[in-house]
Amino acid sequence: MPSLDASMLWTPAGWRADAGFDVADGRLGPARPPREAAGRWIVPGIPNLHSHAFQRAMAGLAERQTHPEDSFWTWRETMYRFAARMTPEAVHAVAAQLYAEMLEAGYTTVCEFHYLHHQPDGTPYDDPAAMSHALIEAARETGIRLTLLPVLYMTGGFDGRPLSERQRRFGHDVDGYLRLLERLRPRQDERLRLGCALHSLRAVPLEAMRAVLAALPPDLPVHIHIAEQIGEVQDCLALRNARPVEWLLANADVDARWTLVHATHLTEAEVQGIARAGATVAICPTTEANLGDGLFPLRAYLEAGGRWGIGSDSHVSVSPVEELRWLEYGQRLATRHRNIAVGVSSSVGETLLRGALAGGAAGSGQAVGALEPGACADWLQLDTDAATFAGVRAEDAVDRWLFAGNRPLVQEVHVAGERLVENGRHRAGERIAAVFERTMRQLLAE
Amino acid sequence: MPSLDASMLWTPAGWRADAGFDVADGRLGPARPPREAAGRWIVPGIPNLHSHAFQRAMAGLAERQTHPEDSFWTWRETMYRFAARMTPEAVHAVAAQLYAEMLEAGYTTVCEFHYLHHQPDGTPYDDPAAMSHALIEAARETGIRLTLLPVLYMTGGFDGRPLSERQRRFGHDVDGYLRLLERLRPRQDERLRLGCALHSLRAVPLEAMRAVLAALPPDLPVHIHIAEQIGEVQDCLALRNARPVEWLLANADVDARWTLVHATHLTEAEVQGIARAGATVAICPTTEANLGDGLFPLRAYLEAGGRWGIGSDSHVSVSPVEELRWLEYGQRLATRHRNIAVGVSSSVGETLLRGALAGGAAGSGQAVGALEPGACADWLQLDTDAATFAGVRAEDAVDRWLFAGNRPLVQEVHVAGERLVENGRHRAGERIAAVFERTMRQLLAE
Repeated sequence: MPSLDASMLWTPAGWRADAGFDVADGRLGPARPPREAAGRWIVPGIPNLHSHAFQRAMAGLAERQTHPEDSFWTWRETMYRFAARMTPEAVHAVAAQLYAEMLEAGYTTVCEFHYLHHQPDGTPYDDPAAMSHALIEAARETGIRLTLLPVLYMTGGFDGRPLSERQRRFGHDVDGYLRLLERLRPRQDERLRLGCALHSLRAVPLEAMRAVLAALPPDLPVHIHIAEQIGEVQDCLALRNARPVEWLLANADVDARWTLVHATHLTEAEVQGIARAGATVAICPTTEANLGDGLFPLRAYLEAGGRWGIGSDSHVSVSPVEELRWLEYGQRLATRHRNIAVGVSSSVGETLLRGALAGGAAGSGQAVGALEPGACADWLQLDTDAATFAGVRAEDAVDRWLFAGNRPLVQEVHVAGERLVENGRHRAGERIAAVFERTMRQLLAE
Repeated sequence: MPSLDASMLWTPAGWRADAGFDVADGRLGPARPPREAAGRWIVPGIPNLHSHAFQRAMAGLAERQTHPEDSFWTWRETMYRFAARMTPEAVHAVAAQLYAEMLEAGYTTVCEFHYLHHQPDGTPYDDPAAMSHALIEAARETGIRLTLLPVLYMTGGFDGRPLSERQRRFGHDVDGYLRLLERLRPRQDERLRLGCALHSLRAVPLEAMRAVLAALPPDLPVHIHIAEQIGEVQDCLALRNARPVEWLLANADVDARWTLVHATHLTEAEVQGIARAGATVAICPTTEANLGDGLFPLRAYLEAGGRWGIGSDSHVSVSPVEELRWLEYGQRLATRHRNIAVGVSSSVGETLLRGALAGGAAGSGQAVGALEPGACADWLQLDTDAATFAGVRAEDAVDRWLFAGNRPLVQEVHVAGERLVENGRHRAGERIAAVFERTMRQLLAE
């Protein structure tokens, strides 16, 4: 029977010495004294709140000037060209490689914001859920916990214009979208939860948003891209006379099941509004930097008591360490002060880890992020033999993990009590990489 | 006889297919066709222009709020406390671990900006160069190429106040400093070059600076910390009626042997002035972010034709990938555009790699950074079997290396033709890590 035995266990209140649990049906049983726990420092697996898996294939291939003023919008053209080449088989291969990399990096849950539904000309596949199934199979193959968020994408702008040729693969009407959710519902199990994603305010008209939200079970996670770009804020102001987050808070019952992805450009009133609603913000620091989006107002949001987590989004980085480190560093560069993310602890690392776990649990809609009786048995064992941890006390270990060097410090990774990563490597990593390599050679030869 | 055989070789003009060299006395011989080169993509080793080795021990241990407005200046207090504990033996152990990590990450030359000279109370060691020797031994043990820059540190501020108690370990008068350089001169060899570092304008009075520069051999590299902090700019304006870089350009013959470390806060005239002088700027993006320094004006400096390289400085990161990636990302966040560092190539990765190599060679004063006849035989072999490179053409390989994920992609590292890293691990890594661990347990137990 799998079991968790820790000499130091990370809890929502900080480190606790000597903790143990048996694992049954993927969940932790009652707490008991640990067995053979020496040197085992254990933290909950980290949820990844925002992923577009297929973009892993193009990571690092859009860093070339295509226009004297490259921006998010020129990047999006490259992304559309790449999306056009993806088949369900390619999505499966790329997602499996990505999910194995995520597990090795310490992510144990991924929220897949999935908009690549149809054939390149917009025709549904024979099985209209073929692409969703490819993602589910990739998650099963690697063992990662999945919150699958099929995306509703209807219009090409705030003015309601139809989808462009390159956006046709993404589109559904409301009925088609609800049928897709229905079709996927039976696949839910201990490691797969279904949720709903609205692509963005520019892609989902108000009436459609209301119709979908009214039809959903009341506890389903709802994710939406919002306020990532200044251009988007300006368009929303021009056509709806309100800023995106301001408009959403006024027109939807935003509550704790909502995750606002990015929410980069906020007024103080919007910061307070999100926090008051109890929603989660999915901050994606490496992608937001790569795309030149801007910096999330972290300090104000923490002071407002806001909930947040991290996402690797476009996968130019697959590392909770880089996301959390640069979430803090961006604030330092903007304020010219140090140690910004403090509050629940004087340690920046501890404050960041607690935030990412609590918000990650809320945003993914799964019982993850805290190792306690009844919770999902998803955990990381830190490599306490690594030079970086030599002589370091538990109270400094999280800071040292997040802010010292670049070596991977996650030794083992368990999901639902199953050991998927040992000595830092996924147990099926070689097989998955071989399929990924064949797939990439085909994709990039086109 | 060691030899370099490449199926693809990175040159100052970009990738070139099929190149080979024999290596004699640590240098490359005439170009010849390669032997057994299949799959060998080779780039020059990357110079690290700025290191304070002992700070590797405290990486990640200053990320805890000590003051509601933490800044560079509160961090400096933590650093002084840490410095007070270092012995020559501890410096050797920490530097050896650091240099092994640097080699594994792809740095083959390190410029050590070395100010920790004396015993904790300021008394010189029996051998006044004991700390310098510890660094030299660490470099020899790991095989990294070293430009040792003993630091002149005389005053505690622009007003000429004496060193504080905590700064006494750093201090020399001009004669003592020149004697230290004399004492170290015989140790120079193929992998060790001596240079001069002036700590900063606040620590070296004008007359002392002039006296030292007049006494130095004319080709010695000269490094100086400058314009890292707004507070430093303000003090310089108040007491010398000029900004730091402005003042330096007016009061010293700044030329191609000079490296200006940080140079974060610049006017357009200062940007132009540095470029015109032909000096190198050592940009340290991860440390500058950790310390909340600010962002170097990269685009303006590139447009002015300025020379620059990277440094890992305080070693909160030991990775040229993270330095170069976030050098570019900082610019994107500030400008809300993408693909800022372009010019010599439309590829951001290629532009960054060329810059870091050319500036790294100039700043280190060594024949590194380009693999051509007569140059130092220092190179990296990329791991072309890694999933990240699958199907990727050479023209995209540098972007993919720098902007896709977090796996180490350096497979082999050679310095002076000697293979120091194989399959990503330093050949003496385990032995060095064991000594480092014992040292850290002692340092952190105090």
